[in-house]
Amino acid sequence: MNVLLWIQYHGKNFYGSQIQPKGRTVQGELELALKRCLNEDISTIFSGRTDAGVHAYRQAINFHTTTNIPADRIAYAVRRFLPDDITSIESKLVDDNFNARYDAKSRSYKYFITQEYDLFKADTSLYYPYDLNYEKIVDATKVIVGKKDFQAFCSAKSDVKSFECDITKLDIEKKGSDLIIEISANRFLHNMVRIIVSILLEVGSGKIVYSEIDSIIQSKDRRNAPKTVSPSGLFLYKIEY
Amino acid sequence: MNVLLWIQYHGKNFYGSQIQPKGRTVQGELELALKRCLNEDISTIFSGRTDAGVHAYRQAINFHTTTNIPADRIAYAVRRFLPDDITSIESKLVDDNFNARYDAKSRSYKYFITQEYDLFKADTSLYYPYDLNYEKIVDATKVIVGKKDFQAFCSAKSDVKSFECDITKLDIEKKGSDLIIEISANRFLHNMVRIIVSILLEVGSGKIVYSEIDSIIQSKDRRNAPKTVSPSGLFLYKIEY
Repeated sequence: MNVLLWIQYHGKNFYGSQIQPKGRTVQGELELALKRCLNEDISTIFSGRTDAGVHAYRQAINFHTTTNIPADRIAYAVRRFLPDDITSIESKLVDDNFNARYDAKSRSYKYFITQEYDLFKADTSLYYPYDLNYEKIVDATKVIVGKKDFQAFCSAKSDVKSFECDITKLDIEKKGSDLIIEISANRFLHNMVRIIVSILLEVGSGKIVYSEIDSIIQSKDRRNAPKTVSPSGLFLYKIEY
Repeated sequence: MNVLLWIQYHGKNFYGSQIQPKGRTVQGELELALKRCLNEDISTIFSGRTDAGVHAYRQAINFHTTTNIPADRIAYAVRRFLPDDITSIESKLVDDNFNARYDAKSRSYKYFITQEYDLFKADTSLYYPYDLNYEKIVDATKVIVGKKDFQAFCSAKSDVKSFECDITKLDIEKKGSDLIIEISANRFLHNMVRIIVSILLEVGSGKIVYSEIDSIIQSKDRRNAPKTVSPSGLFLYKIEY
């Protein structure tokens, strides 16, 4: 059977989600736990990769198994085999040809920025104590949202055929001394969310004006966009099928 | 000069706040950092002790020093000498006879309970997935609040002269799938907040009825109250002078 599993993880102590020969990864730990729980080798498909340090509030995964454990009990069964920084939330039976990566219609991330230092948010937000003009950030989001070629907001290392993404949502929420940026798209390029957050902070702090964003996007040149912000504030938040 | 310093700490990796010959403590780490920063031995007075695992959102401390650093710059100066799980928030000059412990008029704690498992709250809340009757808990708080002898809610190990405390506030707030209990008093006995949270959970889950609380208090016998809950959800929140 084909199982869709939702997991949560704290990214701090992982070298990203994708399995690799060296270094602790989410996929490596998850496949080890599934093997121990289900007594067979399991290959998982993630909805998408997350980088080292990035968290997941809800990440979607699918895998095929011959186990007798009912699909909707697997999340519970595997939980005790997982390390402290990963947990399984929910699982269900899906069609044999369901693919967590290719069938995802929409992906959402949240980025947390805190303007007042708080020890308890150190690993899960970006500490940014400088003045920010909230209205300017809102203006900037309106220039970014939409279906565009986002090569300028993609890590130069990335090797993809198309840079077109459809950003369907880019919202800012103020919550006390915190700022939460929520972004949804059909797909994201490598480092794209963190580069967009970086450009919003540059606009908010007055380093660039929002009317410059459009020419940065049109240049399709990563060097024109500011540097990637820390992964600590970034959460993969929702995957829609 | 006499300095009042406000600090924040994550309790997980401390054997409590109070310095002791063995084991890592908040006071031990803070006095080490102050010595490195101010180049002299410093003895600190805490507003009160917190147990192993208990966090502080704002803990108050005072100490005497001969440094030339202005009192209100000390919080900033000492910060870089502190480990990752302690930070200094604010400092100011106080009267020579000010004492962080004896001059505190009111102490407030918050206890965080989460009913839906969330990895990101694992170290900073109590996971309690059982049904709770919110109205019954509110009724129970009304029986507990006030100036009373709280020996029944005090660790049996405690060696104090008086068990009288004046609980001036005991509020419950619902926030999504979380429950936040806020409690203020002139003083607290050892384990008192965690025993009160435990009794509120017993009432909310129907194990005892709120009318039994008064006779438990009047018995002055620790054995009649339920066991102490986990320190992970407990935060020292505010000290008033």
